[in-house]
Amino acid sequence: MNTQNLIAQIRKKNSFLCIGLDTDMEKIPTYLLSEEDPIFTFNKAIIDATHQFAVAYKPNFAFYEAHGRKGWKSLYKTIEYLNKTYPEIFTIADAKRGDIGNTSSMYAKAYFQEMAFDSVTVAPYMGKDSVEPFLAFRNKHAILLALTSNEGAFDFQTTNCGNTELYKKVLETSKTYENSERLMYVVGATKAEYFEEIRKIVPDSFLLVPGVGAQGGSLEEVCKYGMNKDIGLLVNSSRAIIYASSSSNFAEIAAAKAESMQREMALQIAKFNS
Amino acid sequence: MNTQNLIAQIRKKNSFLCIGLDTDMEKIPTYLLSEEDPIFTFNKAIIDATHQFAVAYKPNFAFYEAHGRKGWKSLYKTIEYLNKTYPEIFTIADAKRGDIGNTSSMYAKAYFQEMAFDSVTVAPYMGKDSVEPFLAFRNKHAILLALTSNEGAFDFQTTNCGNTELYKKVLETSKTYENSERLMYVVGATKAEYFEEIRKIVPDSFLLVPGVGAQGGSLEEVCKYGMNKDIGLLVNSSRAIIYASSSSNFAEIAAAKAESMQREMALQIAKFNS
Repeated sequence: MNTQNLIAQIRKKNSFLCIGLDTDMEKIPTYLLSEEDPIFTFNKAIIDATHQFAVAYKPNFAFYEAHGRKGWKSLYKTIEYLNKTYPEIFTIADAKRGDIGNTSSMYAKAYFQEMAFDSVTVAPYMGKDSVEPFLAFRNKHAILLALTSNEGAFDFQTTNCGNTELYKKVLETSKTYENSERLMYVVGATKAEYFEEIRKIVPDSFLLVPGVGAQGGSLEEVCKYGMNKDIGLLVNSSRAIIYASSSSNFAEIAAAKAESMQREMALQIAKFNS
Repeated sequence: MNTQNLIAQIRKKNSFLCIGLDTDMEKIPTYLLSEEDPIFTFNKAIIDATHQFAVAYKPNFAFYEAHGRKGWKSLYKTIEYLNKTYPEIFTIADAKRGDIGNTSSMYAKAYFQEMAFDSVTVAPYMGKDSVEPFLAFRNKHAILLALTSNEGAFDFQTTNCGNTELYKKVLETSKTYENSERLMYVVGATKAEYFEEIRKIVPDSFLLVPGVGAQGGSLEEVCKYGMNKDIGLLVNSSRAIIYASSSSNFAEIAAAKAESMQREMALQIAKFNS
């Protein structure tokens, strides 16, 4: 999917909500466990109930890999269902990959060709030749980790490197990569005060923002400092939506939660435009 | 596997060779393509022919993921075969994972429990809570990226951060993590001059060393500066061994290549002990 189609979808739905499919067998309603594929059954119900309020879905690969071959089957069924049923949805392989050039090319092939995701999250530590293979695909995107939402972000990302901080150096350096216009960035909502600085470096890029809700970030703050003329944000919520209820009407409750987030987002868009 | 067992194996085989299973359908002998599972057939032949010269095998996950569900099946068969047939071998999931705490826990579960690997490669960018979940497993190891063998390593890893370089800060900081004695580190052979500095920070840790051979690193240099009283090195070779020949006796040729590397390693061990 190209960026213009993503922006059009955001405008149409008045939403920049991304729903994280961190589907955990220990947290889904117990009555689903007797299904042949509980994880896919859960995902399908969540997607069907929430797709009108969301513009993107982000399966978190660890939760599928933890269940081995069965988990991979559930993941494949989920992305195939998304691509077939809701082709307007932007899909994110939340895999945090990155390796030497020929290996990154293989990962890119896995997520963009074999699985047909629109984007994949990528770790920057190994530099240029670990990132560029993900940027070689037309209408596909690498979402580079810049400043993450966890406590460990302060171990290295905010370290002072000469006259800047590491995450800023990552942002600046990545702009010199080939096809850098296909880059997006992960920036945690728990660090909203950083958005102003980040927008000075990447004013036009889309930012994938985890950490609103369960992790304590504020949507208003993120929008105040992070929104741009194309909206430029994908705000992710996982647990707060998909585990809003564990009863038999879990999908309806998730939809209500997603709708409430979409309304908050619509207000922020209106505020930005006024 | 605990470190003592790994050291005992190294002493017994007089080898610290790790063979990288970067198994690529486009590079394996074409006559294998008619097999039901060409990748596993190739891996099994390589492992059976080379195991007496090697102490570790390292499947590179990207090469399996690129083939989707089939690729995962080949990967599972490979690790199951290794664990069942050669339980003394140290196994490395070369997956370069790393995410927020609850997600890293899921990855750890995937590789240590579901797949029963002895270790996994981990990217440090997200800091402490992204690494520690991999260290919570007894007799399992996280192999943290410190200084990699690719060109992009110079983008961020060697950046000056205050009075040190980023990769040194990663090494220093990781020593404060809980169960840090279960850490090993990736250090590229293409940067042998750095080993002396690295050994000042982590004198006792095992280092996984890619980049000897195809990427141009020198075994002698690596041993000169990197070897310690427990040997403390796992030197990886992938392409130079597994693709040494594409004829029907590819496994024999790979074995000859592995034996020749083992002999060079035995010489280096003798030199160190003298």
